[in-house]
Amino acid sequence: MSLTPAAPPRGAEHTARLLISCADGPGIVASISSFLFEQGANIVANDQHSTHPEHGTFFMRAAFYLPALEAGGERARFEAAFDELARRFEMEWRISYAHERMRVALMASREDHCLLDLLWRRRRGELDMDIECVISNHDDARAEVEALGVPYHHIPVTPAEKEAAEGRALELLGGRVDMVILARYMQILSGEFLERVGCPVINIHHSFLPAFAGAEPYRRAYDRGVKLIGATAHYVTAELDAGPIIEQDVQRVGHGYTLEDLVRVGRDLERVVLARAVRSHLDDRVLVHEGRTIVF
Amino acid sequence: MSLTPAAPPRGAEHTARLLISCADGPGIVASISSFLFEQGANIVANDQHSTHPEHGTFFMRAAFYLPALEAGGERARFEAAFDELARRFEMEWRISYAHERMRVALMASREDHCLLDLLWRRRRGELDMDIECVISNHDDARAEVEALGVPYHHIPVTPAEKEAAEGRALELLGGRVDMVILARYMQILSGEFLERVGCPVINIHHSFLPAFAGAEPYRRAYDRGVKLIGATAHYVTAELDAGPIIEQDVQRVGHGYTLEDLVRVGRDLERVVLARAVRSHLDDRVLVHEGRTIVF
Amino acid sequence: MSLTPAAPPRGAEHTARLLISCADGPGIVASISSFLFEQGANIVANDQHSTHPEHGTFFMRAAFYLPALEAGGERARFEAAFDELARRFEMEWRISYAHERMRVALMASREDHCLLDLLWRRRRGELDMDIECVISNHDDARAEVEALGVPYHHIPVTPAEKEAAEGRALELLGGRVDMVILARYMQILSGEFLERVGCPVINIHHSFLPAFAGAEPYRRAYDRGVKLIGATAHYVTAELDAGPIIEQDVQRVGHGYTLEDLVRVGRDLERVVLARAVRSHLDDRVLVHEGRTIVF
Amino acid sequence: MSLTPAAPPRGAEHTARLLISCADGPGIVASISSFLFEQGANIVANDQHSTHPEHGTFFMRAAFYLPALEAGGERARFEAAFDELARRFEMEWRISYAHERMRVALMASREDHCLLDLLWRRRRGELDMDIECVISNHDDARAEVEALGVPYHHIPVTPAEKEAAEGRALELLGGRVDMVILARYMQILSGEFLERVGCPVINIHHSFLPAFAGAEPYRRAYDRGVKLIGATAHYVTAELDAGPIIEQDVQRVGHGYTLEDLVRVGRDLERVVLARAVRSHLDDRVLVHEGRTIVF
Repeated sequence: MSLTPAAPPRGAEHTARLLISCADGPGIVASISSFLFEQGANIVANDQHSTHPEHGTFFMRAAFYLPALEAGGERARFEAAFDELARRFEMEWRISYAHERMRVALMASREDHCLLDLLWRRRRGELDMDIECVISNHDDARAEVEALGVPYHHIPVTPAEKEAAEGRALELLGGRVDMVILARYMQILSGEFLERVGCPVINIHHSFLPAFAGAEPYRRAYDRGVKLIGATAHYVTAELDAGPIIEQDVQRVGHGYTLEDLVRVGRDLERVVLARAVRSHLDDRVLVHEGRTIVF
Repeated sequence: MSLTPAAPPRGAEHTARLLISCADGPGIVASISSFLFEQGANIVANDQHSTHPEHGTFFMRAAFYLPALEAGGERARFEAAFDELARRFEMEWRISYAHERMRVALMASREDHCLLDLLWRRRRGELDMDIECVISNHDDARAEVEALGVPYHHIPVTPAEKEAAEGRALELLGGRVDMVILARYMQILSGEFLERVGCPVINIHHSFLPAFAGAEPYRRAYDRGVKLIGATAHYVTAELDAGPIIEQDVQRVGHGYTLEDLVRVGRDLERVVLARAVRSHLDDRVLVHEGRTIVF
Repeated sequence: MSLTPAAPPRGAEHTARLLISCADGPGIVASISSFLFEQGANIVANDQHSTHPEHGTFFMRAAFYLPALEAGGERARFEAAFDELARRFEMEWRISYAHERMRVALMASREDHCLLDLLWRRRRGELDMDIECVISNHDDARAEVEALGVPYHHIPVTPAEKEAAEGRALELLGGRVDMVILARYMQILSGEFLERVGCPVINIHHSFLPAFAGAEPYRRAYDRGVKLIGATAHYVTAELDAGPIIEQDVQRVGHGYTLEDLVRVGRDLERVVLARAVRSHLDDRVLVHEGRTIVF
Repeated sequence: MSLTPAAPPRGAEHTARLLISCADGPGIVASISSFLFEQGANIVANDQHSTHPEHGTFFMRAAFYLPALEAGGERARFEAAFDELARRFEMEWRISYAHERMRVALMASREDHCLLDLLWRRRRGELDMDIECVISNHDDARAEVEALGVPYHHIPVTPAEKEAAEGRALELLGGRVDMVILARYMQILSGEFLERVGCPVINIHHSFLPAFAGAEPYRRAYDRGVKLIGATAHYVTAELDAGPIIEQDVQRVGHGYTLEDLVRVGRDLERVVLARAVRSHLDDRVLVHEGRTIVF
C-alpha cells in the first residue's frame, strides 16, 4: 500500500511528456512538431535548449494532450510511430504519461526533516507520486510514517554488513520503484547499488560558499566564518556528491550564528531544495547531459 | 555621433529574432518551424510560452541564423513569406536582426549611478546598443558623458514649462531612437509624450516589501522597519509605476541601516536591475501581454 | 495539556534576558553593565542600538547568567534593584527567564502549512514554547493536532456572530497565553480583541514587490507579472497588515509559474518566515519602537 | 596626490572607534563603558560578541564622540589611560579616528570592473578613503585612473621577475598605506610580500556552490551545471583564497546561461561584494579571530 494523494494529480489526466535529446541540426523542431500536429496532439508546454548555436546537443521537452493515448493500444502505435522519426535523427527519447504516477522510495536516517516534509507535501497534493516505502537505517520514524499508511523498513547498516544491507534494500526496491530519494540518508551507497537499483537516485546535501569537503562541514564552515550556507540537490553518481546538480539555494548567516544555528538554517534549506528538485524530476523537467542538468 | 562598442556585438552577425504572439491552437509550432526549416534557417534558440494549456495566448521567440538574409532584398522576400503564414494564424509578429543595433537615448537627473553604469557596460561590450544621446534636466554629468563621445542635452524642467521641455526632448528623440531608458529621470513623463515618442520607455524605481506609494518612500520604508528593499525595472505606461515588470531584485537590510544606508543599497540594486532589464530588451527577450511580461 | 518539547530548551536554564529602552544619553551602558557586574551576572549576549547618534532612543538586550536568580525570592530582589536604576533613566524595561517557556496559542483556518510546521518545529525542539491550544474556524486539522497532544478548539466565524466568536476565543486565551500566532488565520481580528487578549499577536501574510493590497493578491501579482514574491511576519495592530515587521523573505518566480505555482511558493516562504519571526520573539530579540522593530 | 572626496566624510569629524578583543569574563563591559563615561565620551554605536556564553573570546566595537580628542595631546592621554584598563583584562585593542581617512592602494590586472567601481564609489563619497595609487601589471587603465587624479604605476610581472616586481610594489606601498585592495589582481602575492606590506590586504574572488578549486573555475562550474554563482571578499593570507571571509553573495543562474553569461554575472557580484567588504573595513567593523571574521 502506498500513500494516496489528497488532491487530484497535477496536470490533465491525458497529458504526455516527450523528452528528446540528439545532435543539433536543421529540421528537428519542424519534424517533431509536425509529427505531434499530425497525430492530433495539443501541445501545452514546449521547451528547447541547445548547448551551442551551431553544433551542440539539442534537448526538448514537449508536454501535450492527446485523448487517443488513453487506450493502451493507441499508445503503443504512437510510440512506434515516433520511434521511426527518432531513428532518423538518432534521438534518445522517452515518453511519460502524467496519470501514471512515479513510484518512489524514500531512504532516511535519524534526521527526519526532509522525510516528513516530503510525506507532508505528498499528502497535500504538491508532489504527484506514489510513496511505496520508507527505508531507514534507524527505527525512529516508524510510527509517524506508518500512521500515514506508508510501509517502513528498518535496515540497520554496520560497516561489516553494508553489502548485506544494500542487498536487502535492493530486494525491496529492484524493479519496483521509478526513483529513490535520499532524504538525509547518511550512508554512502555503493556504485554496485546505484547500478542495480535501476532508477534515478536524488540526494540532498549541505553546500557552503566555498565548499568544505570531508568531515564536519558545518563545523569547518563555522570556523572559516562563512556568510552564506546552502543546500544542493543532485542525482547520485558513483563519485560522492559530484553528480549533476538539480537545484540549489542559500541563506545569509552572520557571526552571531552558533554552529547549532547553522545546522538549523541548513535543515530549512535542505527540505525546500530537495522538494523543488523532486518536483522538477516528477514533472519530467530534468535532462542530464555530460554531467550537467537542463532543468526546463 | 554615438558611443561605439569596444567589443564585437553579442550574437552572430546574421542572427535574426522572430517574435510572435497569437491565440493558441494546434499546428502553430509545426507551421513556424517548418517554415523556418524550408527557408534554410538554422534555429539557435527557441522559446515558447502559452498562458493556458488549451485556450491561451501563445508566445514564441526564435533566434535563427540565415546567411541569405544578409542581402536586403532577400530580407523583404523572407518577411513577406512569413507574413503570409502569420495571417493564417492571425499572429502579431516582429523580426529584428542582431547586427542592427538598437538606437537608445538615456534620460537622467542628478543621480548618475544608473547613467554611468549603462555607459560603462556599453563601452565594455556588455550592452549591444548605440547610445544616441543623454538628455538630463540637470547639467551635472555633461563632462563625463561627453568624454565618452556621447552628446549631452540639458533640458531643464520647470512646472510651468514642462510641456515645452517634453517638446524639446521629442524633437531630439522622435523617430531617431528605438528605446528610451529612464536612468533615474525624476520627472513624470506625460501620456502624450509616451505616445509621441513612439518607442518603448524603460524605467527603474525603488521597491519595498510591502510597497510605499507616494512621497519619500525610503523614509517610510525605514519608518516601518522593512527588512528587504528592492528595485523594479518596468516599461513605462501612462499610469505611474504600474507598467509591465521586466526585472526585480531585493537585498536584506536590518535595523542598524540608516536611511542613508537604505538609499545606498537601493542604488546598487537599481543599476544592476536596470542593466538586466535593458539587456533582456536588447536581446528581444521581452514580450508584453495584457500588462505582464514574458521574459524568455 | 500542552505539547512538551522533545529536546532540552535552548539556552541555559538560568539565563535571564533584560530588555530596555529609553532616551539615549551618557552613562546608560555604564550604569547597566556595572549593575549587572555587581549583581554577579555573567553576560552571555549584549546588543544595543540607538536610533540616532546623539538624541535618539536607546535599546538594549542583555542575556546573562545568574545562578542566584533560580530562587524566586532572589528574583524579586533583583528586579526591585534594577527598577531603581531604571527609574533614574526613565527606562521602559522587562525581564524574562529562559526556563519559563512562553505559553502560545495558534490560530488557523483551512490552510495548515504554517500550523503543522510550527507544531513540527516545537516537537523537534527548534521553538522553545508551550503550545497551549489551537483555535481554528474550521475543524479540518483536529485529528492531526490532537494526535500531538494539543487541545483543538473549533470556533466557527460567521459575519453575524463574529463578536461572539471572538468572545469565545478570548475566554480561552485571556490571561492564559503570552503570545498568539496567526498561522494563516483568515479572519480579521477586531481592535477590541487585540486589546483584550493582552499579549502580542504575530501574523504572516504574502508580500509582493510591489504590493497588491486588497482581494486576490496572488491573482493580481500574477496579472502584473511580478518576478519576486514574498512573505512578511509582523505584529498585528488594529490597522490591517500595517504592524511592525519582524521578518521577510522573497523568492524569484518567472512567467512560466502558474497562479497555483505562486501560491505554492508563497506557502514555502510563509512557513519559514513565520517560524523565524516566532523564534526571534521567543528569544526576546524583538523590540518595537514607533511602529518599527529592532530585531537583535 | 590622491583622489579627494566629493562628499563630506561619513560619520562625525570627532568620532573615534575602539576595537577590543580579550578572553571573556565578568566586568569587561562595565569597565569599558564606565571608562568611556568618565572620559565624557558619548557612545554612538556599541557592538559586542562573544564566541561562547562562558569561556569564549570577547569582541567589542564602540564608536563614540569625544570633542576633547580633537587635540593631539588629549588623544595621547586618552589612549594611555585606556591602555591601563586594557592591561588589566589583557585586551588587544586599537583605536581609530573617523576623520583620519585610511590611505589605500588598489592593485588590478586587465579586468577593470572592480577598479573603476571603487574609484567611482570613492568620488561619490560612498567610500571614505584616500586612494594613494593604483598598481597594475598591465597599462590598460592608466588614462581612466589618471583622469581622476590618482597615480598609476605599471609594474609588469613575469615568472622570472616576480620577486623584483613585488619589491617595486613594496617600495611604493611600504609604510605608506593602511590597506591594499586587490581589485581583480591576477597575480598570487608571496607570503613575504604579505608580511612586509604591513597592512591588511583584501581580495575578491569568484565562488561557486560547491567550490571549484584550481584553474578555469567558471568553465568547471558551467560543466557541472551549477545553479548559483557567487563572489567572496576576504583578507589575504599566505594560504591561497583561504583567508577570513568578510562578505559573500550569490546569484541564481540556469542552464540557458552561457559561460560568458556566468562571467558577466560574476563581475556584477564581484564589484558589489568587494565594495561592501571595503566599506566594512573602512568603518572598522571587522575583527578577525582564529581565521574567522566578526563583522559588526
